[in-house]
Amino acid sequence: MFQNEVEILYAEDNPTDVELTLFALRRSRLANSIHIARDGAEALDYLFCRGAFSSRDFSAPKFVLLDLKLPKVDGIEALKAIRQDERTKMIPVVVMTSSKEQKDLVESYKLHVNSYIQKPIDFDQFQQVVEQLGLYWLVVNQAPPAETLDQAGPNSIGAVTK
Amino acid sequence: MFQNEVEILYAEDNPTDVELTLFALRRSRLANSIHIARDGAEALDYLFCRGAFSSRDFSAPKFVLLDLKLPKVDGIEALKAIRQDERTKMIPVVVMTSSKEQKDLVESYKLHVNSYIQKPIDFDQFQQVVEQLGLYWLVVNQAPPAETLDQAGPNSIGAVTK
Repeated sequence: MFQNEVEILYAEDNPTDVELTLFALRRSRLANSIHIARDGAEALDYLFCRGAFSSRDFSAPKFVLLDLKLPKVDGIEALKAIRQDERTKMIPVVVMTSSKEQKDLVESYKLHVNSYIQKPIDFDQFQQVVEQLGLYWLVVNQAPPAETLDQAGPNSIGAVTK
Repeated sequence: MFQNEVEILYAEDNPTDVELTLFALRRSRLANSIHIARDGAEALDYLFCRGAFSSRDFSAPKFVLLDLKLPKVDGIEALKAIRQDERTKMIPVVVMTSSKEQKDLVESYKLHVNSYIQKPIDFDQFQQVVEQLGLYWLVVNQAPPAETLDQAGPNSIGAVTK
Protein backbone atom coordinates (compact mmCIF):
# COMPACT_ATOMS: atom_id res chain seq x y z
CA MET A 1 0.00 0.00 0.00
CA PHE A 2 1.22 3.48 -0.75
CA GLN A 3 1.86 5.57 2.28
CA ASN A 4 -0.78 8.16 1.50
CA GLU A 5 -3.60 5.80 0.70
CA VAL A 6 -6.64 6.10 2.90
CA GLU A 7 -7.37 3.09 5.07
CA ILE A 8 -10.74 4.21 6.38
CA LEU A 9 -13.40 6.34 4.74
CA TYR A 10 -15.53 7.59 7.60
CA ALA A 11 -18.85 9.23 6.77
CA GLU A 12 -20.21 11.02 9.82
CA ASP A 13 -21.80 14.44 10.35
CA ASN A 14 -21.71 14.51 14.16
CA PRO A 15 -18.48 16.30 15.19
CA THR A 16 -18.45 14.73 18.66
CA ASP A 17 -18.66 11.22 17.20
CA VAL A 18 -15.88 12.05 14.73
CA GLU A 19 -13.68 13.33 17.52
CA LEU A 20 -14.31 10.32 19.77
CA THR A 21 -13.72 7.88 16.93
CA LEU A 22 -10.45 9.51 15.86
CA PHE A 23 -9.31 9.60 19.47
CA ALA A 24 -10.04 5.88 19.96
CA LEU A 25 -8.40 4.84 16.69
CA ARG A 26 -5.31 6.91 17.31
CA ARG A 27 -5.00 5.78 20.91
CA SER A 28 -4.87 2.20 19.74
CA ARG A 29 -2.48 3.20 16.91
CA LEU A 30 -4.82 1.70 14.40
CA ALA A 31 -5.30 4.25 11.71
CA ASN A 32 -2.85 6.66 10.24
CA SER A 33 -4.95 7.55 7.33
CA ILE A 34 -8.65 8.34 7.59
CA HIS A 35 -10.75 10.46 5.29
CA ILE A 36 -13.72 12.08 7.02
CA ALA A 37 -16.74 12.91 4.90
CA ARG A 38 -19.36 15.10 6.56
CA ASP A 39 -22.24 13.91 4.41
CA GLY A 40 -23.12 11.02 2.11
CA ALA A 41 -22.58 13.00 -1.08
CA GLU A 42 -19.03 13.90 -0.05
CA ALA A 43 -18.33 10.27 0.87
CA LEU A 44 -19.42 9.12 -2.59
CA ASP A 45 -17.58 11.94 -4.34
CA TYR A 46 -14.44 10.94 -2.48
CA LEU A 47 -14.88 7.25 -3.22
CA PHE A 48 -15.68 7.73 -6.91
CA CYS A 49 -13.14 10.57 -7.44
CA ARG A 50 -15.80 13.09 -8.43
CA GLY A 51 -16.46 16.76 -7.75
CA ALA A 52 -13.92 18.16 -5.27
CA PHE A 53 -12.05 14.84 -5.52
CA SER A 54 -11.89 14.55 -9.30
CA SER A 55 -8.10 14.77 -9.24
CA ARG A 56 -7.82 11.81 -6.86
CA ASP A 57 -6.72 8.49 -8.34
CA PHE A 58 -9.10 5.72 -7.41
CA SER A 59 -8.00 3.53 -4.54
CA ALA A 60 -10.20 1.53 -2.20
CA PRO A 61 -10.08 2.09 1.55
CA LYS A 62 -9.78 -1.04 3.70
CA PHE A 63 -13.31 -0.32 4.89
CA VAL A 64 -16.00 2.34 4.95
CA LEU A 65 -17.45 3.35 8.31
CA LEU A 66 -20.87 4.74 7.60
CA ASP A 67 -23.37 6.65 9.67
CA LEU A 68 -26.97 6.33 8.45
CA LYS A 69 -28.50 9.72 9.23
CA LEU A 70 -26.33 11.77 6.92
CA PRO A 71 -27.15 15.04 5.13
CA LYS A 72 -27.55 15.23 1.35
CA VAL A 73 -27.27 11.49 0.66
CA ASP A 74 -28.21 9.25 3.58
CA GLY A 75 -26.26 6.17 4.62
CA ILE A 76 -28.64 3.66 3.02
CA GLU A 77 -28.42 5.46 -0.34
CA ALA A 78 -24.64 5.69 -0.02
CA LEU A 79 -24.44 1.95 0.73
CA LYS A 80 -26.63 1.27 -2.31
CA ALA A 81 -24.33 3.33 -4.54
CA ILE A 82 -21.23 1.58 -3.16
CA ARG A 83 -22.76 -1.84 -3.84
CA GLN A 84 -23.80 -0.86 -7.38
CA ASP A 85 -20.38 0.16 -8.66
CA GLU A 86 -17.93 -2.48 -9.88
CA ARG A 87 -15.03 -0.61 -8.30
CA THR A 88 -16.53 -0.46 -4.84
CA LYS A 89 -19.09 -3.23 -4.51
CA MET A 90 -16.78 -5.54 -2.55
CA ILE A 91 -15.39 -2.92 -0.15
CA PRO A 92 -16.30 -3.81 3.43
CA VAL A 93 -18.89 -1.38 4.76
CA VAL A 94 -19.61 -1.11 8.48
CA VAL A 95 -22.67 0.88 9.49
CA MET A 96 -22.36 2.57 12.88
CA THR A 97 -25.57 4.29 13.77
CA SER A 98 -27.67 5.60 16.62
CA SER A 99 -30.78 4.43 14.77
CA LYS A 100 -32.81 1.90 16.68
CA GLU A 101 -35.19 1.29 13.80
CA GLN A 102 -35.39 -2.29 12.68
CA LYS A 103 -36.00 -1.22 9.08
CA ASP A 104 -32.54 0.38 8.98
CA LEU A 105 -30.98 -2.83 10.27
CA VAL A 106 -32.87 -5.01 7.79
CA GLU A 107 -32.35 -2.64 4.86
CA SER A 108 -28.61 -2.50 5.56
CA TYR A 109 -28.33 -6.29 5.60
CA LYS A 110 -30.40 -6.51 2.42
CA LEU A 111 -27.84 -4.20 0.79
CA HIS A 112 -25.08 -6.54 1.97
CA VAL A 113 -23.62 -4.38 4.68
CA ASN A 114 -20.68 -6.28 6.16
CA SER A 115 -21.47 -5.32 9.72
CA TYR A 116 -24.01 -3.20 11.60
CA ILE A 117 -23.18 -1.56 14.90
CA GLN A 118 -25.38 0.35 17.28
CA LYS A 119 -23.50 3.39 18.57
CA PRO A 120 -23.07 3.00 22.33
CA ILE A 121 -24.27 6.06 24.23
CA ASP A 122 -21.72 5.57 27.01
CA PHE A 123 -18.40 7.32 26.32
CA ASP A 124 -16.15 4.41 27.36
CA GLN A 125 -18.22 1.83 25.54
CA PHE A 126 -18.16 3.97 22.40
CA GLN A 127 -14.39 4.05 22.48
CA GLN A 128 -14.12 0.32 23.12
CA VAL A 129 -16.42 -0.46 20.22
CA VAL A 130 -14.43 1.82 17.89
CA GLU A 131 -11.18 0.16 18.95
CA GLN A 132 -12.65 -3.29 18.40
CA LEU A 133 -14.05 -2.44 15.00
CA GLY A 134 -10.83 -0.72 13.96
CA LEU A 135 -8.75 -3.72 15.00
CA TYR A 136 -11.14 -6.12 13.33
CA TRP A 137 -11.42 -4.42 9.93
CA LEU A 138 -7.84 -3.14 9.67
CA VAL A 139 -5.95 -6.11 11.11
CA VAL A 140 -8.08 -9.26 11.43
CA ASN A 141 -10.15 -9.05 8.27
CA GLN A 142 -8.60 -9.53 4.85
CA ALA A 143 -10.01 -6.91 2.48
CA PRO A 144 -10.67 -7.80 -1.17
CA PRO A 145 -7.54 -7.38 -3.30
CA ALA A 146 -7.09 -3.90 -4.76
CA GLU A 147 -6.68 -5.17 -8.31
CA THR A 148 -10.23 -6.51 -8.38
CA LEU A 149 -11.62 -3.20 -7.21
CA ASP A 150 -10.24 -0.72 -9.70
CA GLN A 151 -10.68 -2.44 -13.03
CA ALA A 152 -13.85 -0.63 -13.99
CA GLY A 153 -13.57 2.81 -15.51
CA PRO A 154 -14.86 6.01 -13.95
CA ASN A 155 -18.04 5.85 -16.03
CA SER A 156 -19.20 2.44 -14.90
CA ILE A 157 -22.50 2.05 -13.11
CA GLY A 158 -22.90 3.40 -9.63
CA ALA A 159 -24.40 6.84 -9.90
CA VAL A 160 -25.97 8.08 -6.71
CA THR A 161 -29.64 7.22 -6.83
CA LYS A 162 -30.91 10.38 -5.24
CA MET B 1 -32.99 -15.78 22.72
CA PHE B 2 -33.83 -19.20 24.05
CA GLN B 3 -31.14 -20.76 26.14
CA ASN B 4 -30.55 -23.67 23.81
CA GLU B 5 -30.29 -21.71 20.61
CA VAL B 6 -27.00 -21.98 18.81
CA GLU B 7 -25.01 -18.75 18.60
CA ILE B 8 -22.29 -19.98 16.23
CA LEU B 9 -22.48 -22.55 13.49
CA TYR B 10 -18.89 -23.58 12.90
CA ALA B 11 -18.10 -25.62 9.79
CA GLU B 12 -14.60 -27.07 10.04
CA ASP B 13 -13.17 -30.52 9.31
CA ASN B 14 -9.76 -30.04 10.94
CA PRO B 15 -10.02 -31.36 14.53
CA THR B 16 -7.04 -29.31 15.74
CA ASP B 17 -8.58 -26.08 14.46
CA VAL B 18 -11.89 -27.00 16.08
CA GLU B 19 -10.19 -27.66 19.39
CA LEU B 20 -8.16 -24.43 19.31
CA THR B 21 -11.18 -22.37 18.34
CA LEU B 22 -13.38 -23.82 21.08
CA PHE B 23 -10.59 -23.30 23.60
CA ALA B 24 -10.16 -19.63 22.61
CA LEU B 25 -13.90 -18.92 22.62
CA ARG B 26 -14.45 -20.60 25.96
CA ARG B 27 -11.42 -18.94 27.52
CA SER B 28 -12.87 -15.56 26.67
CA ARG B 29 -16.32 -16.75 27.83
CA LEU B 30 -17.76 -15.83 24.50
CA ALA B 31 -19.77 -18.77 23.33
CA ASN B 32 -21.92 -21.12 25.29
CA SER B 33 -23.58 -22.61 22.32
CA ILE B 34 -21.72 -23.68 19.20
CA HIS B 35 -22.72 -26.28 16.67
CA ILE B 36 -19.77 -27.92 14.93
CA ALA B 37 -20.35 -29.32 11.46
CA ARG B 38 -17.54 -31.48 10.08
CA ASP B 39 -18.40 -30.86 6.44
CA GLY B 40 -20.36 -28.43 4.29
CA ALA B 41 -23.30 -30.78 3.79
CA GLU B 42 -23.77 -31.19 7.54
CA ALA B 43 -23.55 -27.42 8.01
CA LEU B 44 -26.33 -26.87 5.48
CA ASP B 45 -28.44 -29.75 6.83
CA TYR B 46 -28.14 -28.20 10.27
CA LEU B 47 -28.98 -24.70 9.06
CA PHE B 48 -31.93 -25.77 6.92
CA CYS B 49 -33.21 -28.41 9.40
CA ARG B 50 -32.78 -31.29 6.96
CA GLY B 51 -31.53 -34.88 7.16
CA ALA B 52 -30.24 -35.66 10.65
CA PHE B 53 -31.55 -32.25 11.77
CA SER B 54 -35.06 -32.49 10.33
CA SER B 55 -36.58 -32.34 13.81
CA ARG B 56 -34.80 -29.08 14.61
CA ASP B 57 -36.90 -25.91 14.54
CA PHE B 58 -35.30 -23.26 12.37
CA SER B 59 -33.37 -20.58 14.22
CA ALA B 60 -30.52 -18.48 12.89
CA PRO B 61 -27.12 -18.51 14.59
CA LYS B 62 -25.59 -15.09 15.30
CA PHE B 63 -22.98 -15.96 12.68
CA VAL B 64 -21.56 -18.80 10.65
CA LEU B 65 -17.82 -19.45 10.85
CA LEU B 66 -16.91 -21.24 7.66
CA ASP B 67 -13.81 -23.07 6.51
CA LEU B 68 -13.44 -23.26 2.72
CA LYS B 69 -11.82 -26.63 2.11
CA LEU B 70 -14.62 -28.79 3.46
CA PRO B 71 -15.58 -32.33 2.46
CA LYS B 72 -18.84 -33.09 0.59
CA VAL B 73 -19.90 -29.47 0.03
CA ASP B 74 -17.07 -26.95 0.05
CA GLY B 75 -17.21 -23.58 1.78
CA ILE B 76 -17.90 -21.55 -1.37
CA GLU B 77 -20.87 -23.77 -2.27
CA ALA B 78 -22.13 -23.61 1.30
CA LEU B 79 -21.88 -19.80 1.25
CA LYS B 80 -23.78 -19.75 -2.06
CA ALA B 81 -26.57 -21.89 -0.56
CA ILE B 82 -26.76 -19.69 2.55
CA ARG B 83 -27.07 -16.56 0.39
CA GLN B 84 -29.74 -18.12 -1.84
CA ASP B 85 -32.23 -18.99 0.90
CA GLU B 86 -34.60 -16.34 2.24
CA ARG B 87 -34.22 -17.69 5.78
CA THR B 88 -30.44 -17.49 5.84
CA LYS B 89 -29.33 -14.95 3.26
CA MET B 90 -28.72 -12.18 5.81
CA ILE B 91 -26.90 -14.30 8.41
CA PRO B 92 -23.36 -12.98 8.90
CA VAL B 93 -20.86 -15.44 7.44
CA VAL B 94 -17.18 -15.25 8.34
CA VAL B 95 -14.80 -17.33 6.25
CA MET B 96 -11.70 -18.49 8.15
CA THR B 97 -9.40 -20.36 5.85
CA SER B 98 -5.83 -21.44 5.29
CA SER B 99 -6.31 -20.84 1.56
CA LYS B 100 -3.95 -18.26 0.13
CA GLU B 101 -5.61 -18.28 -3.26
CA GLN B 102 -6.89 -14.93 -4.40
CA LYS B 103 -9.77 -16.54 -6.27
CA ASP B 104 -11.18 -17.82 -2.94
CA LEU B 105 -10.95 -14.33 -1.47
CA VAL B 106 -12.60 -12.71 -4.48
CA GLU B 107 -15.26 -15.40 -4.86
CA SER B 108 -16.18 -15.11 -1.18
CA TYR B 109 -16.59 -11.33 -1.45
CA LYS B 110 -18.62 -11.76 -4.64
CA LEU B 111 -20.95 -14.03 -2.66
CA HIS B 112 -21.26 -11.31 -0.01
CA VAL B 113 -19.22 -12.91 2.71
CA ASN B 114 -19.28 -10.56 5.69
CA SER B 115 -15.65 -11.08 6.56
CA TYR B 116 -12.69 -13.13 5.32
CA ILE B 117 -9.91 -14.21 7.62
CA GLN B 118 -6.66 -15.96 6.87
CA LYS B 119 -6.01 -18.61 9.52
CA PRO B 120 -2.84 -17.65 11.37
CA ILE B 121 -0.33 -20.50 11.50
CA ASP B 122 1.06 -19.40 14.85
CA PHE B 123 -0.80 -20.90 17.82
CA ASP B 124 -1.05 -17.70 19.87
CA GLN B 125 -2.06 -15.60 16.88
CA PHE B 126 -4.73 -18.14 15.97
CA GLN B 127 -6.23 -17.86 19.42
CA GLN B 128 -6.09 -14.07 19.41
CA VAL B 129 -7.84 -13.93 16.06
CA VAL B 130 -10.56 -16.33 17.24
CA GLU B 131 -11.12 -14.25 20.37
CA GLN B 132 -11.31 -11.05 18.31
CA LEU B 133 -13.73 -12.49 15.80
CA GLY B 134 -15.84 -14.06 18.53
CA LEU B 135 -16.05 -10.78 20.40
CA TYR B 136 -16.78 -8.86 17.24
CA TRP B 137 -19.58 -11.03 15.85
CA LEU B 138 -21.21 -11.99 19.15
CA VAL B 139 -20.96 -8.71 21.03
CA VAL B 140 -20.06 -5.75 18.79
CA ASN B 141 -22.04 -6.58 15.66
CA GLN B 142 -25.81 -6.45 15.62
CA ALA B 143 -27.14 -9.50 13.77
CA PRO B 144 -30.24 -9.20 11.57
CA PRO B 145 -33.44 -9.63 13.59
CA ALA B 146 -34.62 -13.23 13.90
CA GLU B 147 -38.12 -12.44 12.67
CA THR B 148 -36.84 -11.46 9.24
CA LEU B 149 -34.88 -14.69 8.91
CA ASP B 150 -37.49 -17.36 9.54
CA GLN B 151 -40.47 -16.18 7.57
CA ALA B 152 -39.85 -18.39 4.56
CA GLY B 153 -41.07 -21.94 4.65
CA PRO B 154 -38.84 -25.01 4.65
CA ASN B 155 -39.31 -25.49 0.91
CA SER B 156 -38.13 -22.07 -0.17
CA ILE B 157 -35.18 -21.72 -2.50
CA GLY B 158 -31.75 -22.56 -1.28
CA ALA B 159 -31.07 -26.19 -2.15
CA VAL B 160 -27.42 -27.13 -2.14
CA THR B 161 -26.10 -26.63 -5.62
CA LYS B 162 -23.83 -29.65 -5.67
